[in-house]
Amino acid sequence: MSASSRRGVDVGALVEQARDGSPRAVARLVSMVEDASPALREVAATLAPHTGHAYVVGLTGSPGVGKSTSTNALVGAVRARGLRVGVLAVDPSSPFSGGALLGDRVRMQEHATDAGVFIRSMASRGHLGGLSWGTPQAIRVLDGAGCDVILVETVGVGQAEIEIASLADTTIVLLAPGMGDGIQAAKAGILEIADVFVVNKADRDGAQSTVRDLQGMLGLGGRYADDAHWRPPIVKTVAARNEGVDDVLAAIDAHRAWLEKTGGLRSRRRERAAREVEAIAVAALRARIGDLRGGVALDSLADQILDGKLDPYAAADALLAETSD
Amino acid sequence: MSASSRRGVDVGALVEQARDGSPRAVARLVSMVEDASPALREVAATLAPHTGHAYVVGLTGSPGVGKSTSTNALVGAVRARGLRVGVLAVDPSSPFSGGALLGDRVRMQEHATDAGVFIRSMASRGHLGGLSWGTPQAIRVLDGAGCDVILVETVGVGQAEIEIASLADTTIVLLAPGMGDGIQAAKAGILEIADVFVVNKADRDGAQSTVRDLQGMLGLGGRYADDAHWRPPIVKTVAARNEGVDDVLAAIDAHRAWLEKTGGLRSRRRERAAREVEAIAVAALRARIGDLRGGVALDSLADQILDGKLDPYAAADALLAETSD
Repeated sequence: MSASSRRGVDVGALVEQARDGSPRAVARLVSMVEDASPALREVAATLAPHTGHAYVVGLTGSPGVGKSTSTNALVGAVRARGLRVGVLAVDPSSPFSGGALLGDRVRMQEHATDAGVFIRSMASRGHLGGLSWGTPQAIRVLDGAGCDVILVETVGVGQAEIEIASLADTTIVLLAPGMGDGIQAAKAGILEIADVFVVNKADRDGAQSTVRDLQGMLGLGGRYADDAHWRPPIVKTVAARNEGVDDVLAAIDAHRAWLEKTGGLRSRRRERAAREVEAIAVAALRARIGDLRGGVALDSLADQILDGKLDPYAAADALLAETSD
Repeated sequence: MSASSRRGVDVGALVEQARDGSPRAVARLVSMVEDASPALREVAATLAPHTGHAYVVGLTGSPGVGKSTSTNALVGAVRARGLRVGVLAVDPSSPFSGGALLGDRVRMQEHATDAGVFIRSMASRGHLGGLSWGTPQAIRVLDGAGCDVILVETVGVGQAEIEIASLADTTIVLLAPGMGDGIQAAKAGILEIADVFVVNKADRDGAQSTVRDLQGMLGLGGRYADDAHWRPPIVKTVAARNEGVDDVLAAIDAHRAWLEKTGGLRSRRRERAAREVEAIAVAALRARIGDLRGGVALDSLADQILDGKLDPYAAADALLAETSD
């Protein structure tokens, strides 16, 4: 009987069920990530041999550009290829996961009964560092559960839009006409993170001018396509009518082929894994320090500081030595 | 020849000069805190035996309540007792230290040539966690340099006003009439952090009603003065005319006496030292991980994750083991 089954969670069985396509088992594993369950360590170890297969696509954009509709349309297009799809809708502004969930479920109900699609809304835990802690682990769950493509959708607010680029193999930045997005994009450094631009609601006035603005800015940046530089294509869609969605998939395919040819896919994923390890290490250290606060170690070090016998750096060294046992 | 003197900083001499009252030496040491100088460790060790003497008073309040004027008046009152005073003006909203500095210098010029007063504006480094990293170390510099009283002034914005309470022995919350501060105070949880309330600009309309609002809220909170509970006094001042400033000092004295009688002073300072150690330990770990990124350790762990041979938790364990050498 393993440690986790004694706590009522049989991680091995849960991972097995998730790999067999049980949405309940996948949901349970993602919840364990959200709750920072003590069993996560065992989950990660059990999943490890089964990961590395999924291709991760990030979608970001300002509110109102049609992210959920676009995600929905992309899910349909990927499913049409017979591939399994996972969707993570990450809301970096919400401390709870309940809020966005219902809305997404309603919008995604087209795929809600499709066993080849797993949809999940997630809050990103601010105190653990934005997207950096939970999202990669949730991606790992979907990857281990056999998803071929994972779409990570996040609101393009502040830091989240930069972070998503570090999580995804291909990052899609969504824009819509008449929202002043051209200027917004330049400001937010979004030009730097986009592998593919999608101008959604392309049937509206101003779509062509948004495309021209983007072309102009990409040109000004002096970017061009060769082995060292990827020039982000600009795709027009009307996601609500599924128009242009196959072009988006084609752009993702082209970017993936370029990444594989140049070795960029491996290096992106290496960087992603390294960040994930770093985030877990720092969280682990904080937790160990928290444990020590409950005990006498930190208080005793603090007392020595108050008595002038120790300085805070030497105390921090001692603390790190204790936490590394 | 010590390590630091080889780098051009003779920490021992600098601390000696600071203790002899050289404002230049004190300024240099605080700058080393701001710049996270590698010599900080030696600075802390050299200062340690000389710290623990200063009494730390925090001042916070919304913009416009008269914080700088009040600080200025308090400096005069403390100086009249023949005590040495240090002033740290911390601007949590500024990434640079230059901004607030000039304004404060102008307002504080009354004391600028007084060798018994040291005034310094500081930015708090957001990425190192608000006030928590640099401010305690700057307080330690002023303490080690022989200040009897250290006034830490910060804008009451967001987290900073809560953090200042954890840094100070006595926390003063400044209000002014007619600013809707009563409601603001209740909202911001400022009632919980104030050891002394000061209603400044008490010659203006509405001062008495601000006092009554505060009294009402303190009463509603059911707080009373005994060994376990301190009831924050409410002091009226016109700082610009030095009115009521001695009453503020008397309130600080009373709070200090209560803290010393109940053992609260030691426990506050122990908590402060513990937090400082924790902040340094986490920063140190992050730095060590950063060093490893430059090398092969983290990349190699990430590669093993990509190959499914290792999970991120096991990798984090390995990383922590490497960083604890």
